[in-house]
Amino acid sequence: MKNYLEMSKHERRKALEEQQKLYEQQKAAGLNLDMSRGKPDATQLNLSMDMLQQNPYDLIYTRKGTDVRNYGELAGVDEAKELFAELLGLKMENIIMGGQSSLALMYDTVIKAFVLGVYGGSKPWGQQGKVKFLCPVPGYDRHFLITQEFGIEMISIPMKKKGPDMDLVRQYVESDPLVKGIWCVPKYSNPTGITFSNDTVEAFAALKPAADDFRIFWDNAYFVHGFRDKDDQLMNIFEACEKYGSEDMVYEFMSTSKVTFSGAGVAVLAASKHNIDFLTRQMSIQTLGYDKINQLRHVKYFKNVAGLKKHMQKQANYLRPKFDVVLAGLERGLKGTGIGKWSNPNGGYFISYDGLPGTAKRCIDLCAMAGVKMTPAGATFPYGIDPEDKNIRIAPSFPSTPELYQSMNIFCICQKIAALEKLLEEKDNE
Amino acid sequence: MKNYLEMSKHERRKALEEQQKLYEQQKAAGLNLDMSRGKPDATQLNLSMDMLQQNPYDLIYTRKGTDVRNYGELAGVDEAKELFAELLGLKMENIIMGGQSSLALMYDTVIKAFVLGVYGGSKPWGQQGKVKFLCPVPGYDRHFLITQEFGIEMISIPMKKKGPDMDLVRQYVESDPLVKGIWCVPKYSNPTGITFSNDTVEAFAALKPAADDFRIFWDNAYFVHGFRDKDDQLMNIFEACEKYGSEDMVYEFMSTSKVTFSGAGVAVLAASKHNIDFLTRQMSIQTLGYDKINQLRHVKYFKNVAGLKKHMQKQANYLRPKFDVVLAGLERGLKGTGIGKWSNPNGGYFISYDGLPGTAKRCIDLCAMAGVKMTPAGATFPYGIDPEDKNIRIAPSFPSTPELYQSMNIFCICQKIAALEKLLEEKDNE
Repeated sequence: MKNYLEMSKHERRKALEEQQKLYEQQKAAGLNLDMSRGKPDATQLNLSMDMLQQNPYDLIYTRKGTDVRNYGELAGVDEAKELFAELLGLKMENIIMGGQSSLALMYDTVIKAFVLGVYGGSKPWGQQGKVKFLCPVPGYDRHFLITQEFGIEMISIPMKKKGPDMDLVRQYVESDPLVKGIWCVPKYSNPTGITFSNDTVEAFAALKPAADDFRIFWDNAYFVHGFRDKDDQLMNIFEACEKYGSEDMVYEFMSTSKVTFSGAGVAVLAASKHNIDFLTRQMSIQTLGYDKINQLRHVKYFKNVAGLKKHMQKQANYLRPKFDVVLAGLERGLKGTGIGKWSNPNGGYFISYDGLPGTAKRCIDLCAMAGVKMTPAGATFPYGIDPEDKNIRIAPSFPSTPELYQSMNIFCICQKIAALEKLLEEKDNE
Repeated sequence: MKNYLEMSKHERRKALEEQQKLYEQQKAAGLNLDMSRGKPDATQLNLSMDMLQQNPYDLIYTRKGTDVRNYGELAGVDEAKELFAELLGLKMENIIMGGQSSLALMYDTVIKAFVLGVYGGSKPWGQQGKVKFLCPVPGYDRHFLITQEFGIEMISIPMKKKGPDMDLVRQYVESDPLVKGIWCVPKYSNPTGITFSNDTVEAFAALKPAADDFRIFWDNAYFVHGFRDKDDQLMNIFEACEKYGSEDMVYEFMSTSKVTFSGAGVAVLAASKHNIDFLTRQMSIQTLGYDKINQLRHVKYFKNVAGLKKHMQKQANYLRPKFDVVLAGLERGLKGTGIGKWSNPNGGYFISYDGLPGTAKRCIDLCAMAGVKMTPAGATFPYGIDPEDKNIRIAPSFPSTPELYQSMNIFCICQKIAALEKLLEEKDNE
């Protein structure tokens, strides 16, 4: 394909006309496709149905004899804590089992920090004026919505190839005591798909925060979600912290929302012993514990870490072709045009697409009018504002393969229209 | 039995010696019994095991076709909302389905009111100085722990035969804008077992709070938990509120912790449409929804309100004898002594015992030394302090019948010792 950046005004006009014609054809087809969220489809969910087929009478007692149907075991059943601890390279004592949502655990941790404070902090965050969070961008929209909800000032930090710009992170964290946290998806990051390098993880561990109550929100959502032969390796941040004695600075989160069921999995909070003791004390006021039958159901199904990884292999085999359809669609539609670049991750749930500046919103509107729902433009940035209006998050997991094929055809047409309109407009301005 | 209050000093000394002898015998038996919490035993939990025996492939789709295994349906699946709405005499739109714990829902509602405010309120509670809650006493210890956690000042309100002292409630609520809430267990109250009369419910509905953000926390934990032929009737507070246009003032809570599984049930928040819309918006930042498989599992098992009530009949038949063993033990051990009185509720999970002032703590310590764990003295009051040191919450649900029999023998001995010690001490002071 010809590079759009090198076209003459005339060529661009002609190309735009062509794409508009194709667009009208697609629009007439009256599609209704959703690529907006990273959620599994029904077939993928079926891969975990055996978990629900277990005999319920095998799911009553923990190994130490606790009846999971009853109250008790506030921080979760031992075998669940042990399984997820092993997976994360930690000890059982570093784990609190949550409900079905790690997002809810993060929200809960933030709101409690606001009202009740965190371990080692002299005052609750809410009593310190306008506190701030660092937000690597593009990032996960729901993280940003939480900080926005509490009126926390969000500071964008550019994502580089090996993780957030750590010089900038260090500068903010070490100089400003109002910087209380940073959102991270360290492996197969949402949406960029990158995995933080060892240097990046080390740089996090080495931070010397100006605040006595700064926390890294390490949302390890895709820690076992590689789908290629080559799985990215993420350094264990707690191991890195040992050298610096900084392990109290980290809250790690994960869940089985994309391991078993998005609507009925189990979530995990991992932290230092100090933090776990502090948070468990807070939790003792809040509840008598999360759903323990579901915890035991998960553990008895996986059996061990190897079992969980084997289970994830099924998911990988199912997801990989969906990513490949999208990647092929982007190649087919846009290769050589020079108007966009996109990630090719080894795992996770997203492909991050960067178009020409000033085209993302227009492209997504065009897609919507042609029946393809994408994540809203700007969603990957704090306050929903992408300053360059160029990043689009593509979520291949939910639509079927034929739908993905059609969606990508439409997406590429919309990209071309948006890019050509923008280029022609600029040309006019010249 | 002779009335201890009418005994001579000599008779009391003799009686004390006798009881001390009996106590030493019991102590030597080396028992280890727990009457401290209102939780079901394994046999009672077994009554709900059929719910877990359902074919998981019947628990995938809601009637409108939503896959409950996936994200979505933030406020819960329609059929669950409908079932619990009908049970509470409300509409589906008045319901949010929570996780497994209504306590967690209450905590969550309080902490959000603190940071984010409530519908119609001009400011979050946390920005208004030292706010206050009214606490009918004796009451539920975990309610008081939540308000204590957030530094909310707790004001005790005496419980009368028909509910809290509503003159006092009205006086506080209508004069002090810092009074933001009141804790209520309106049916088979924890621990008194009383059910609020129609007049009491009407008086709640008629309140004209000085605050624009006052809420009644209506913890209807035992709404279908009658175990006698005669079931107490609780007026629907939302119906009462209609007359006064005051329905925005009420948050109602319930759960199936004592219907199915204490560790793995479903919880419900019921409120006005205004409140539900407001809370659902807040919730949309927090999570993508609670465990919907478990919601559908509950609904498909109960089928309808009649099915749920039929299920509760099994629980009633199982619990009733446990209460009767305790009541018989109290009669056998204490009738005519004049040193205590106790409730005889038609439902719920507790018997409330009032001994002579200044004896509760001593009695519970004696029980503990003889191997019978009771709810700590004072637990039924804010800050854990019973100003008269006389109320003891007896929870008959967990121990077996033989254990209850033994426990009550010991309890009565300990009551007698504590009372005689107190009476002799007073005599000495005279």
